[in-house]
Amino acid sequence: MYELHFAVPMAGAILCTSNIRHDSAMVSVLLRYSEAKVFFVDYKFVEVPRGALDLLYLTKTKLPRLVLVPTSQIPSHTVSISSTNFNSSTLDYESLRALGKPEFEIRRPKDESDPISLNYTSGTTSSPKGVVYSHRGAYLNSLAAILLNGMGPMPVYLWTVPMFHCNGWCLTWSVAAQGGTNVCMRNVSAKGIFDAISIHKVTHLGGAPTVLNMIVNALPSERKPLPFKVEVMTAAAPPPSQILFKMDELGFNVTHSYGLTETNGPGTVCTWKPEWDSLPPTEKARIKSRQGVYHLGLDEMDIKDPVTMKSVPSDVNTIGEVMFRGNTVMKGYLKNIKATEEAFKGRWFRSGDLGVKHPDGYIELKDRSKDIIISGGENIILEVAVVGRPDDHWGETPCAFVKLKEECNNANAEDIIKFCRDHLPHYMSPRTVIFEDLPKTSTGKTQKFVLKEKAKAMGSLTKMNDSKL
Amino acid sequence: MYELHFAVPMAGAILCTSNIRHDSAMVSVLLRYSEAKVFFVDYKFVEVPRGALDLLYLTKTKLPRLVLVPTSQIPSHTVSISSTNFNSSTLDYESLRALGKPEFEIRRPKDESDPISLNYTSGTTSSPKGVVYSHRGAYLNSLAAILLNGMGPMPVYLWTVPMFHCNGWCLTWSVAAQGGTNVCMRNVSAKGIFDAISIHKVTHLGGAPTVLNMIVNALPSERKPLPFKVEVMTAAAPPPSQILFKMDELGFNVTHSYGLTETNGPGTVCTWKPEWDSLPPTEKARIKSRQGVYHLGLDEMDIKDPVTMKSVPSDVNTIGEVMFRGNTVMKGYLKNIKATEEAFKGRWFRSGDLGVKHPDGYIELKDRSKDIIISGGENIILEVAVVGRPDDHWGETPCAFVKLKEECNNANAEDIIKFCRDHLPHYMSPRTVIFEDLPKTSTGKTQKFVLKEKAKAMGSLTKMNDSKL
Repeated sequence: MYELHFAVPMAGAILCTSNIRHDSAMVSVLLRYSEAKVFFVDYKFVEVPRGALDLLYLTKTKLPRLVLVPTSQIPSHTVSISSTNFNSSTLDYESLRALGKPEFEIRRPKDESDPISLNYTSGTTSSPKGVVYSHRGAYLNSLAAILLNGMGPMPVYLWTVPMFHCNGWCLTWSVAAQGGTNVCMRNVSAKGIFDAISIHKVTHLGGAPTVLNMIVNALPSERKPLPFKVEVMTAAAPPPSQILFKMDELGFNVTHSYGLTETNGPGTVCTWKPEWDSLPPTEKARIKSRQGVYHLGLDEMDIKDPVTMKSVPSDVNTIGEVMFRGNTVMKGYLKNIKATEEAFKGRWFRSGDLGVKHPDGYIELKDRSKDIIISGGENIILEVAVVGRPDDHWGETPCAFVKLKEECNNANAEDIIKFCRDHLPHYMSPRTVIFEDLPKTSTGKTQKFVLKEKAKAMGSLTKMNDSKL
Repeated sequence: MYELHFAVPMAGAILCTSNIRHDSAMVSVLLRYSEAKVFFVDYKFVEVPRGALDLLYLTKTKLPRLVLVPTSQIPSHTVSISSTNFNSSTLDYESLRALGKPEFEIRRPKDESDPISLNYTSGTTSSPKGVVYSHRGAYLNSLAAILLNGMGPMPVYLWTVPMFHCNGWCLTWSVAAQGGTNVCMRNVSAKGIFDAISIHKVTHLGGAPTVLNMIVNALPSERKPLPFKVEVMTAAAPPPSQILFKMDELGFNVTHSYGLTETNGPGTVCTWKPEWDSLPPTEKARIKSRQGVYHLGLDEMDIKDPVTMKSVPSDVNTIGEVMFRGNTVMKGYLKNIKATEEAFKGRWFRSGDLGVKHPDGYIELKDRSKDIIISGGENIILEVAVVGRPDDHWGETPCAFVKLKEECNNANAEDIIKFCRDHLPHYMSPRTVIFEDLPKTSTGKTQKFVLKEKAKAMGSLTKMNDSKL
């Protein structure tokens, strides 16, 4: 996978990595959608690709050329990918490499904005969207990733982040650019992480909070003392205070980053300020849970009212949508002009994430816009929360629980739905609106699970044979 | 100066910094050539600008608008820039700042390749050349400079490198990009450097070997213990082994970089490998004297035969010209198409520096091409050295001392001169060719001073009234 991050672009081709958690049906859809010409398959994961190729064969789709990548554990002669349905001509990875010439010519892109890779994101709709990265964007995000990971020359990077996620947050290229060493693991485990750090003197690693969780819950027998402070980049969700505290105790320095597949991975980082060092642990965790400031590869990141496109004030209260602009934002979605246009409406990339701005410019995410819809400039709504209502046809439809301002009690559900449809993509607009006080926890957070139960109890809005979809 | 590195580009204007060592005549030439509209003058350096403005006035050139920048040492009311010849309307810097609006609009460049700054280089000819930097080039070189200086977040940078040299090697912008602190000094002195490091906890500084020399020769009373290892970037000439050794003893880590005004400052860096740590000091110094590998902002750097444009082999012996290609190479010379075309002949920027390639890809400069001319693909010459021969009209003309290969003794001076004129810019071609064995030192280096004495003894080639120039 790592070698192909260089070989494929240098051959003038486009890289599309596949999530190992996909099933055969999904892989077959993605292969067809991407029009993949060559399919590199790891010996360890032949079952799913075999099923995917079977499906392609059955739908009479031209099969991609197969290249099998051996592992040290599984000798090449013990594995075959042929099934009863097809007998594709395959090539061994090492045999393919042997066909190469040492003095090969690099196929440079004609234009720097030509695509370098394709990364699928499931998004909010059922069909996967192929996010297209350009050479220019990937180059700049790789440089930015070096900086936001605080990587000096010759880092030793442990791959706990999968390379099939946004090309490993672009760190596949960053590590090479800094002359670093890559340490890969077949299975991510606490013992494996501590062993790798101890043996290879790992300087950096990254991962979702689940990886941090795994580390802090390691058994004493699995732990090894760290050779120095190890840098850990986390993303996807803010790290909880207790985990941060324990990570720090173990000798890790955790940095919190935020981004999307559409921003080539990390777009912001909660850059730590020395004056925060002396704060109590819970306060530190509170600050570290912010998504921070945008990195040097971007032109701009802002939180805006999605309707008026005005920046929200830096008052920690006004919620808006996080929007990005700049080179490290994707070119668009493959073969999906409509979704691309929607995502870039107003000439900013709309993340779909909602958040607030702090007076120091750091942003903090609140809820996803698929959970909450704010009403733009119309100040008739005091509070709102949107949850999914089960639906026989759509799976779920948006259901809004609304508390109106005291003086606005004459608004009705139709008004709210019409307003939303006028200003938001259709699929984002609620189909059900319930007026009531929102249930809260003792600390003032909305009890979403209560609302979800209520929505579930309503049953499906559309019936299976309903033609009025 | 630092603030203007941001204010001027953000106002949509182009920054042109002036070397404080220029005299009034030179400054007046540069002001006229640049068509400067606003001239920011430091109170401490009013004499030279006053003389320059006098000269502009005498040649009936429109004077630029003056803004005087006060210092804490010199109160504003004690200084006037008016002379007997003119009485330009001036504005105080702080008064100008007071005219600004906090909610100002940034004038973004229409195109990323629009100019951001102009840096004069004296070059090899007498007329100064204005090197034009683009926003794109300066941005990428600033990112590359962060990486090659090994700057983490929030560095503390001591300005021993003048900001009027290639915009401080682009570090003016790098330090801001990393959220750093700038420590400025009016006069660079050993005591000042040690004091600044101690007071401000300086993490990085840079300078020509003269700065390193100053540091290692500090009196014991001027020295202060360093708070940690301080990173020093040096350029312009390879640091001598003894200085490197002493710098290391004092707690500095010296990195060697190389570049030109035309490459936005640093273009290569001698990236240090851990396996070199255990080498003896002289061997370390020998390795550190290499100019290294090109940085991440460039597309490519190579050493090529200037005639055939073929890459020289990585054999440490074959000399070629160092050439650069990529975004961080200048746009061109202001109002000088001829010099620009010559510099970019063959679609590479020709540095005029000669060097060799090591098997590990690191380059090492040999002599300047103005000192040595190599003969390209024609293998009739065994050794050659070129020195300046005094000249009444030109100052100097190139004089070649040539040792032909054994089997090629039939070549004459006219052949060599014709060949050079056919393949090199006219001014680079020798006007005198002497065939003889080159004098050598015991270690095999050419004794250039002997050849220079010989050329001097020949006297001027052209006489004062010679019309055949």
